[in-house]
Amino acid sequence: MNPDITRERKNATFDVEKLTYILDGGPEKTKRRREIESLVFSDPDFSEEDPNFLSRSDRYDQAVRKSAQMILKLREYGIADPEEIYCYKKCVHPDRAEPLDLHLGMFLPTLLNQATPEQMDRFFMPAWNLEIIGTYAQTEMGHGTHLRGLETTATYDPATQEFVLNSPTISSIKWWPGGLGKTSNHAIVLAQLHTLGNCHGIHAFIVPIRDMSTHIPLPGIVVGDIGPKFGFSEVDNGFLKLENVRLPRDNMLMKYAKVEPDGTYLKPPSAKLTYGTMVFIRSLIVGESARALSKASIIAIRYSSVRHQSEIRAGEPEPQILDYQTQQYKLFPLLATAYAFTFVGQYMRETYQRISGDISNGDFSQLPELHALCAGLKAFTTWTTNAGIEVCRMSCGGHGYSRSSALPDIYVEFTPACTYEGENTVMMLQTARYLLKSYRQAKDGQQLSGTVSYLNDANLQRVQPQTVAARPTVVDVNDLSSLVEVYKQRAAILVEMAAKSIQQELQHRKCQEDAWNNSSIDLVRASDAHCHYVIVKLFTNKLGEIGDTAIHSVLSTLALLYALHGIKNNSGDFLQAGLLSVPQVLQVSVRVKELLSQLRPNAVALVDSFDVNDKRLNSVLGRYDGNVYEHLFEWARRSPLNATEVHESFHKYLKPLRSQL
Amino acid sequence: MNPDITRERKNATFDVEKLTYILDGGPEKTKRRREIESLVFSDPDFSEEDPNFLSRSDRYDQAVRKSAQMILKLREYGIADPEEIYCYKKCVHPDRAEPLDLHLGMFLPTLLNQATPEQMDRFFMPAWNLEIIGTYAQTEMGHGTHLRGLETTATYDPATQEFVLNSPTISSIKWWPGGLGKTSNHAIVLAQLHTLGNCHGIHAFIVPIRDMSTHIPLPGIVVGDIGPKFGFSEVDNGFLKLENVRLPRDNMLMKYAKVEPDGTYLKPPSAKLTYGTMVFIRSLIVGESARALSKASIIAIRYSSVRHQSEIRAGEPEPQILDYQTQQYKLFPLLATAYAFTFVGQYMRETYQRISGDISNGDFSQLPELHALCAGLKAFTTWTTNAGIEVCRMSCGGHGYSRSSALPDIYVEFTPACTYEGENTVMMLQTARYLLKSYRQAKDGQQLSGTVSYLNDANLQRVQPQTVAARPTVVDVNDLSSLVEVYKQRAAILVEMAAKSIQQELQHRKCQEDAWNNSSIDLVRASDAHCHYVIVKLFTNKLGEIGDTAIHSVLSTLALLYALHGIKNNSGDFLQAGLLSVPQVLQVSVRVKELLSQLRPNAVALVDSFDVNDKRLNSVLGRYDGNVYEHLFEWARRSPLNATEVHESFHKYLKPLRSQL
Repeated sequence: MNPDITRERKNATFDVEKLTYILDGGPEKTKRRREIESLVFSDPDFSEEDPNFLSRSDRYDQAVRKSAQMILKLREYGIADPEEIYCYKKCVHPDRAEPLDLHLGMFLPTLLNQATPEQMDRFFMPAWNLEIIGTYAQTEMGHGTHLRGLETTATYDPATQEFVLNSPTISSIKWWPGGLGKTSNHAIVLAQLHTLGNCHGIHAFIVPIRDMSTHIPLPGIVVGDIGPKFGFSEVDNGFLKLENVRLPRDNMLMKYAKVEPDGTYLKPPSAKLTYGTMVFIRSLIVGESARALSKASIIAIRYSSVRHQSEIRAGEPEPQILDYQTQQYKLFPLLATAYAFTFVGQYMRETYQRISGDISNGDFSQLPELHALCAGLKAFTTWTTNAGIEVCRMSCGGHGYSRSSALPDIYVEFTPACTYEGENTVMMLQTARYLLKSYRQAKDGQQLSGTVSYLNDANLQRVQPQTVAARPTVVDVNDLSSLVEVYKQRAAILVEMAAKSIQQELQHRKCQEDAWNNSSIDLVRASDAHCHYVIVKLFTNKLGEIGDTAIHSVLSTLALLYALHGIKNNSGDFLQAGLLSVPQVLQVSVRVKELLSQLRPNAVALVDSFDVNDKRLNSVLGRYDGNVYEHLFEWARRSPLNATEVHESFHKYLKPLRSQL
Repeated sequence: MNPDITRERKNATFDVEKLTYILDGGPEKTKRRREIESLVFSDPDFSEEDPNFLSRSDRYDQAVRKSAQMILKLREYGIADPEEIYCYKKCVHPDRAEPLDLHLGMFLPTLLNQATPEQMDRFFMPAWNLEIIGTYAQTEMGHGTHLRGLETTATYDPATQEFVLNSPTISSIKWWPGGLGKTSNHAIVLAQLHTLGNCHGIHAFIVPIRDMSTHIPLPGIVVGDIGPKFGFSEVDNGFLKLENVRLPRDNMLMKYAKVEPDGTYLKPPSAKLTYGTMVFIRSLIVGESARALSKASIIAIRYSSVRHQSEIRAGEPEPQILDYQTQQYKLFPLLATAYAFTFVGQYMRETYQRISGDISNGDFSQLPELHALCAGLKAFTTWTTNAGIEVCRMSCGGHGYSRSSALPDIYVEFTPACTYEGENTVMMLQTARYLLKSYRQAKDGQQLSGTVSYLNDANLQRVQPQTVAARPTVVDVNDLSSLVEVYKQRAAILVEMAAKSIQQELQHRKCQEDAWNNSSIDLVRASDAHCHYVIVKLFTNKLGEIGDTAIHSVLSTLALLYALHGIKNNSGDFLQAGLLSVPQVLQVSVRVKELLSQLRPNAVALVDSFDVNDKRLNSVLGRYDGNVYEHLFEWARRSPLNATEVHESFHKYLKPLRSQL
């Protein structure tokens, strides 16, 4: 054990293990998680070569091998609880996407939700037993977020009682679905349904794409891998071009909408039913943001505690880089953010569970708010995490660029979350739409509840951003509930400003849609402020649940840092609205510095509490024992370029060059 | 040619070609650049497989092949001007680092600067003719920026008149030098010189590391590749462990410092002589920031002009995504930044040339300011560019993640610039040191000149950040010279605030060094504001040189957007200092939106003016002709995973799995 990191741990003021329980949701959850981790990490069938040393094809090969093993072992151990499966999977493929993700996460659930009993009989058990391996093909090369824009067609032919599927243009080729390129033999394809001369919009079809026995693509199917990406090297994201592919009528998923043998179309009873899955996945992504940022913080903070560099005082030994204020200022707000997002993730999961209970009882009343909140928080947390991982990486100096640090991989595996499951700017605008609707309702005298209830106040106590000096500043920058209040007011003001911008645009001859577009900068900003408020509030609420004094104290410091750092970074908003005075903003800067010093002795313990197994972290810089340099050297020597002492290019190009010069 | 992009070009209000001349520095420079590009891009010897489809070893192999060809052809064509060599090289290896970078950029120049005439005879011509291939080994595994911390030792043995070189610890292993792992047979090694019982600090030694004929590592040399990184896959960044390596006395570079045969040490005459190279390289990096951000903007803006998505008005066809205000707000400020950095890069190059003239005449007076400015601008421009590339990438939706977009590669090849040649935070603090020194000089009544002369005013017209309302706000947010003034005042105030923070720390019992560290957040912020001011000022100055009315008009719009966007993003600073009033800040937001609309018709033409050859850009999304989808499909089909219809993993793992379930 590195002596620096040992000393850090001795200096901690709280019990690391107890904080881990809080993060996991209880000691029994921690225990079970560790059991599952140990099942995977002690299993030689899951040992692997560092993917960074492999070619793309070998990475894919290794991932398929491990996924196949995973399926076997999950059944062998009888692990069936979705959370436990998720945990097991995240250890087998340490926080990497894998070839069966869409089969398990989209194909099977879509069958469960949208297949008729007859279709369940035909498809579910074969899919459960991996005879059918499926994916979910929605996105097209030219069309993403906007479902109505999809071009793939499924035209019903009553003569043969078949659908004819086509990709009529290049831009209509299905593009991106995971597992589509090489792994799957079936795909749920979303296509525009045409029957009896009418188009009825997007519907889902089960399309066999490869021969069940030979795995060779079927006639009319052009399928393959879309090529290397930023990350996701284990996954065969694929393309699919359909050329007059004929499909029996009962391959359309017909639990809700139906096409009768004669071609008559029957509408689905409700459109809200597919809503829930989206909400669920987005709330999961909030948790994944927390996980990615936690991992990046662990690596950067542990490494900063063992790395010595330069000098603070002349003549003294090089200090730990964690002693530099600039380093603390990079890392501790991100550490606080990782905690904030973890608690927000917990809240979202619980809320989802509560509300899905309501939904199954037919009560959809909470869904719009949850939907709006998920969209915004998904965008807010992924953007913050995306930038934060890179700050952590660059805070490790040169070694942060080495693949051995794991930071490049954490980044490239995480960054797609800013785009998939709803592009972030689109997400922010969805939240804004809900905020604006709520704002108008409050103005019309409706009493709002839930996270937007502050818009009731906004209506009463009309805010005038211009009159800075007029507003009484009663904010106590050391009091979290006071800060929650000020974040709330900021959100209210920015929602109102966005609403006014739309109004002004309408007055300037613009139609409603152009007014919306011309105000979208303000709308995104309002959503951002709303999410920021919700996060500060949830973090503060969480403190109320913490009984342990030492842990309560250190988490309060983190929460305060989170809130004040956010104010410092957005001080223009708070000053502009007259919510804080200039001396208060200066005071915030001073307090932030004090909080950094205050957190310094607990920094390593706070990342230890995340309790990420070394094998899952897979970072030479972030090792629990702090023995960085030996393992960096050992890792480098395994680089494929060191397989031979002399690379063949010397004999091929460099030596012959001499005689030519 | 895609009809959307054709229409965009028709709508431009200025002559693209003329703006290219301005960016290149004159029509003759444009002409010569295009000649060189055509030499490379029409040369079949430089054709290559997309590196994204190759293994690491094959990427390295391809790069060595091309580098060897490059050396031959540069001599064949008689290209000898350093700027032309640079241009040629950047086409051969399109903006990628390559294995001979350090040989050409560090080994040869270091010989020229620090070798004795006898050493020049022994080493220079063999190195010029690639018999000797060298690198520059400074950084160690445990030591980067802080030269005094290096651990490698060179101990003089008078008995044999040799130096004995050692890597006494794991952390002292040389780490990172480009070309060290596999390519080089020599290294200039920086080591602590010990002679006659005394240590004289860091000196440079020419160390043979591989046999000239067999290329096998020499005895006592442990050398290899440091393994895969985030980017730089073509380069064999290496490690070097020295185990009692004996070196003749005259392998120490002795143009300045010397060790006599008996071991007597002779000091170098001046320490400032190595200063210049650093300044030169950092000023080059400013230009590289501009280039990288230009490329990212080209790709994102061209793609946004041909990509259609979602809807603004219900029922109408999907609009070009460049019509979304949020998309404009992401991209146009970055476009403006790319222009700003290009002009700053031009200024730095000219200034360097002017000042190096002075230096060779023995006049070092301008060097400290240039040194400080380079450090800060290197950090400011690389950080901004680093974040900006990712904004561009994510603005392209899913396809931005595809390696075919080139955006992932632009990012990973660029991001090391935030760390190499001086870690950015360290750079910012170097600039701050100069600013604080200047501030104190001004306070002591000295009259400052150059970029820091504003600190003279600050001294007279003492600034009180607290008294917001008291400051007369005479800023015209539509007038660039007025905005330059307000950026200047912001910088002055932030320098003063940092100075005050240090003072306060000193009053609280802190020593000078701790006071500095405890103020370093403020110091970085002051440097940042200083750099921002310089950039706004240089962009504004540049407008004065533009004769063409149409170009002057569009560049003025860009400059105004750059300045106002910076104010919007840092509005807290301006409000806090009372430099702008709340209504003015609101006005800035409104103006920013107007400027986005104003730039919209010229966006594509403005990126066309960067005139980056399609082969150099190498992006399916950024193609000049806008025919994105056909080429995306064509590229994907070449993915190595599509070499076979059925991947072997199906037969190895997936098919056998069925019988086990």
